[in-house]
Formats: sequence, C-alpha cells, structure tokens
Amino acid sequence: MTELREDGFLGGRLRIAQPAQGYRAGADAVMLAAACPARPGDSVLELGCGAGAALLCLGARVPGLRLAGLELQPAYAELARRNAAANAIPAELHEGDLARMPAALRGQSFDHVIANPPYFTGGPPAPDAGRGRARHEATPLPLWIEAGLRRLRPGGWLTLIQRSERLAEILAALSAAAGAITILPVAAREGREAGRIIVAARKGTRAPLRLLSPFVMHAKPLHSADEEDLTGAAQAVLREGAALSLGGPNFR
Amino acid sequence: MTELREDGFLGGRLRIAQPAQGYRAGADAVMLAAACPARPGDSVLELGCGAGAALLCLGARVPGLRLAGLELQPAYAELARRNAAANAIPAELHEGDLARMPAALRGQSFDHVIANPPYFTGGPPAPDAGRGRARHEATPLPLWIEAGLRRLRPGGWLTLIQRSERLAEILAALSAAAGAITILPVAAREGREAGRIIVAARKGTRAPLRLLSPFVMHAKPLHSADEEDLTGAAQAVLREGAALSLGGPNFR
Repeated sequence: MTELREDGFLGGRLRIAQPAQGYRAGADAVMLAAACPARPGDSVLELGCGAGAALLCLGARVPGLRLAGLELQPAYAELARRNAAANAIPAELHEGDLARMPAALRGQSFDHVIANPPYFTGGPPAPDAGRGRARHEATPLPLWIEAGLRRLRPGGWLTLIQRSERLAEILAALSAAAGAITILPVAAREGREAGRIIVAARKGTRAPLRLLSPFVMHAKPLHSADEEDLTGAAQAVLREGAALSLGGPNFR
Repeated sequence: MTELREDGFLGGRLRIAQPAQGYRAGADAVMLAAACPARPGDSVLELGCGAGAALLCLGARVPGLRLAGLELQPAYAELARRNAAANAIPAELHEGDLARMPAALRGQSFDHVIANPPYFTGGPPAPDAGRGRARHEATPLPLWIEAGLRRLRPGGWLTLIQRSERLAEILAALSAAAGAITILPVAAREGREAGRIIVAARKGTRAPLRLLSPFVMHAKPLHSADEEDLTGAAQAVLREGAALSLGGPNFR
C-alpha cells in the first residue's frame, strides 16, 4: 500500500487513515452509514468495509453497536483495525472473501448488514491494484446481496449504496428473500436524475416497495469549487453525523 | 354497462365517454400518453386501452400516428371505437386478451407500446365487474410486459404507468429483453414518496437504467378541494397536452 493520509469525517469527529493514492471512501460511505437504521445495542456487519469509514461513521453516530467488518484486501483490513482503535470505536475486522464467508462470520447473524459494493463492472483499469479492486467488482453484485441477506437475522435490514443504473440487478437479488424495499434516490442537484441510490430491505417480509423523494446533495445549480454549496440536509449528514431517515410505516 | 358520462381531457380538446359508475380513466392515462416518445408517422399499440383515453390523448398530441388498441372487455372496446370516431382520431380497436394475442395483432410490430395495467392484485372487490377488471389484474403484470415487448420492433419503446410498489416486478420483466430503462417517479407533492412510476424501456438495447427526478403533481402542501393546485408542469401535461419528456442521451 502506498503512503497514507488522514481524512476527517463527520466534521472532523472521526479521523480515518486511507491510502493517499489508492481507493478512499468519501461521501457515499457517510451516506450509507447515515441510512442504516441501527439502534443502540444492535449488531452490524459491513461487507467490503475497506479502511472502515462507513462502519466507523455508524459507530460514531449510534452508541453501543456491535460492529463487524469483512474486507478482502489485507492491507485495507489492517487499516480498518487501526482506524477503529485510533477512533476508540470497538469493531471486529475480518479478512476474507464474502463469496467464501469466513467461518467466524458464518456462525453469526446480524441485525444489520451494510455495503457499498464496487461501482464498476469489468476489470480494474486503475494503476493502483487496491483501488481497482475497491472500485471494480470481482464478485458480482447479486452475490454481495445474497451474502448480506444470509448474514441477517429474520427481520434484519440490508442497506446498500450503489449507482442508480444497477437498480434492476439490486431489486432482482433482494426480491427473493427480502421485502419492504425502500429506495432513496440521491441526486447531485435538484431536478437532476439520481446518480446514486440507497436501497434498504428487510429480510423475510413481504411489505411493499417504496420509492422515496430524492436526497439532494448540492444547493447551487452549477458546480462550485468549494464544498459550501451542500444542502442543509447534506451538511447535517456529512458534517454533523445526522441520520438519514428512510422512515415510513414499514421502517423501524 | 351502466350509464355513460362524458369527461373532458387535455383542457376539453378531447371528449371521452366513460361509464358513469364503472372504471374511468383519469390523470394516469394522460400522463402515460404524455410520456410516450412517439413521433409523427410512428405506430402505437395500447394494451388494455379501456375506453381509449390514453390512446386518444396521444393521438391528439402527436399527429399522423397509426394507433391500435387491445381491450379485453367488449363494452369498453366498443366505447373506445365510438370515442375515436367522435374525436376524429383514427384508431384500430381490437377486442381480445393480451395473454392470447389476437391474430390481427400477432402479425404486426409497433414503434411503441403503452399500457396502464391494473393497479391491484387479487380478485375484484368492486361491485361493478367492468371496473373490477380494469383495476384488478387477472393477467399478471409480467405477462403484460412480455406481451408488450413481443409486439415491439427492435429499438421500439414500451411505456408503462403503475404503482411504485410494483417496480421490482416491472424491472425483472423488462430486463430480459429491454434496456435504457427510464424511471420517472410521480409524486403527489414535493418531498413525498412517489405513488406512481412511469417506466419506459427500449427493446433490444443494453443501455443503462436511469432514475429521473420526480414529476410533482400538486403545488400546495395540503390537499385542497379544487384542482387549481396543480403544478405548472402538471397543468401543461393534463390541461394543455404537453409532452412529458423522459429525455436524455438514450432517449430518442
């Protein structure tokens, strides 16, 4: 792994060391953590946790969680361990492949599974192999979802963030074993199509799907160089560690 | 069929006779017609055309279309014929079951297929049998989509309006033979979850899915008795016959 640098999350409340040149988690990891409806005392597994940004954002927001992470790349798993310790957030980090779930996790079930699976299909063009693996899927997206659903207790929630264009694959993989599918479109700006979606689903229910009003990240119509054009809602999530409620009759 | 009454569509430009007590098309039919990207000279088939509201709205908006409709219920098919004639919009109306496509349609392919399939599953509780059949599906939704895709030429567009909660079924049925899936959420009010979706897809392409910014129907935060709280965009579509563009790089 290349040189590290430390990034601040949640307004600096969390410091996460990440490779300076490799894959670095950003706003999507924070959004994922904000959308997970975990409550104090719940158990949470993150599949493909990288350096731990999403898992630790969640731990920083909700006290008393039992956090576990699974990461394929040993250097990132080690970094996640160090980041958890440095931020004083207890988390059990496992090195391994979600397609061949490590025995230590196979025996467990969780209240929540979260994942930010790689956004791109096909081989990694990135010169940095670690970054390439984080951004380009080796394991097909449906297997991420199946592995996540298997690790959930009945009634547990799977929460994902992905590019919108993968929606059909996501719904197909979820529909077999989960319901109460809740889709939050994430749009860069008001009126724009959603580039990202956050999808949550509950294992073992047949409650109907819901398509929420979009979450809008930026307030100004055109991109500005500084970050100060975040909407109030995006600032609350990204800088102040607010929860991102997917609330509704089926959501706990 | 019970007594008829005449409803105005597109600001009164179109007069559609519909059963006073039975199923009557409304805003959803107009939205469906507005979203179909048909151009002058194209051919369009509507599955389950009822009294013809969507098909005739489309014919009123786009000149020179070759319009065809398929309707299971003879009384509605006859009504569609009369409505087409009364509005001087040529349309070929077929009586029959989309699950056993009439021979006259089996031999044809179309540039566009549109449908507003029944919104509710399970048996019809409505006292009016015709209304019950229009609102409660006898033919499962995936069969509507498969029948529609079969009637399209390669590169042709299928456009549907449905309740949002059926999104997973719709995407599953479309994904086998269509791409460029474009989802327009339709929300009653700003910030509300989408009750309806308009979904368009193109036969025989693998272009990516797009999730558009919602179309909002009403401007006021609370429901008011009169209809004058329609947003400007909704007024343009419902009263002035404007097109509802699902535009973008993959949309013709």
